[in-house]
Amino acid sequence: MRLRKIKDAKERLEKDENYFISNPREYKGKWKSIFKNDNPIWIEVGAGKGNFAIGMAKHYDNVNFIAIEKFDSVLIKAIEKAQCENISNLKFINDDAILLEEIFDNAEVSNIFLNFSDPWPKTRHAKRRLTSPLFLKVYENILDENGAINQKTDNKILFEYTLESLSQNDWYLSNISVDLHAEEGIFNVETEYEAKKKLLGPIYRLEARKYKNKDNKCEE
Amino acid sequence: MRLRKIKDAKERLEKDENYFISNPREYKGKWKSIFKNDNPIWIEVGAGKGNFAIGMAKHYDNVNFIAIEKFDSVLIKAIEKAQCENISNLKFINDDAILLEEIFDNAEVSNIFLNFSDPWPKTRHAKRRLTSPLFLKVYENILDENGAINQKTDNKILFEYTLESLSQNDWYLSNISVDLHAEEGIFNVETEYEAKKKLLGPIYRLEARKYKNKDNKCEE
Repeated sequence: MRLRKIKDAKERLEKDENYFISNPREYKGKWKSIFKNDNPIWIEVGAGKGNFAIGMAKHYDNVNFIAIEKFDSVLIKAIEKAQCENISNLKFINDDAILLEEIFDNAEVSNIFLNFSDPWPKTRHAKRRLTSPLFLKVYENILDENGAINQKTDNKILFEYTLESLSQNDWYLSNISVDLHAEEGIFNVETEYEAKKKLLGPIYRLEARKYKNKDNKCEE
Repeated sequence: MRLRKIKDAKERLEKDENYFISNPREYKGKWKSIFKNDNPIWIEVGAGKGNFAIGMAKHYDNVNFIAIEKFDSVLIKAIEKAQCENISNLKFINDDAILLEEIFDNAEVSNIFLNFSDPWPKTRHAKRRLTSPLFLKVYENILDENGAINQKTDNKILFEYTLESLSQNDWYLSNISVDLHAEEGIFNVETEYEAKKKLLGPIYRLEARKYKNKDNKCEE
């Protein structure tokens, strides 16, 4: 995403009273206390301008949704969008994916969404991709036993890399689409970026679990 | 592929003296004796009109290539094409993929190529797909320890199914492409079907091994 720096982004984040969590590490292991219910926690890593997080939280009202975005200038846009609505099961964090274990306890998360992450197309930058082995290890620790990584991307290199990285690190793949918008009858909350990119080429999607999904259609 | 029945296909196959092996079960465990060398054995399952098998055998002269095709009316076309050339490392078999263990011994094969296999698009026919768990079990038995399945297809449903089927059955994925003909600098022998289909949409490709490939780029 093209990033325009907003000088007072941090101050504006701090002013929010409903959505922004400025001290996420204090809630490690007790996120459900914030939401005052026992619903599963789903997180989006790299929430951008927030369309996906807001759409998902509204659709899945029996889920607690936490959106993480490392750029404050982007995050403030997401939060100011959410402020126009009243969504009790949605929070935002300004942090870095590699630090997720400081914020979430073992098995505290049920779904991780990675939407149109930076593809870092140069091979020498592959480790920075959000599905490199380093990040997969972090996700494994915070996901519960049936927890899944859910990726959408329009980037061929990132998608191919992710399939191989997951496979080589013993994750089980399911729900793959090599052309998501050609599928019929699926529920899909679009990101801002996706709404534009879907006109130009295929959107790829996958799911992956660390433990074998007994319901998978391939096991029939 | 559209199939036109050739009435005397069987007789014409039997007449071939260089390429057609009419009694493949007699060579189980001793295929190298046919080729009179110790080179690895690569097989194509569903060889169609033979372009791929002929191209591969000519390019990889340190490999023994065996092409299997269940329809004799198609196979005779492949063999008659090969008869125009003198290729010592190529043989053809008229048989069914599910019977491969009757023809090849444990670990006798180093590469299996599945090119543009019948996608059997209806879910209730999924078991007939050449990458269903039933077939994967057969491939596992005939492949050697570093042996790989290599798939190319233009069919979205078959490709997605194959990725999930391999993953759920503990095969490790590598060398994935969601748009093979957009890649630069790769060696690729086209099938007859591929030459037409690549103009209409992406060609998908993958490799899979039962044992972890230590050289995989994702393990860096």
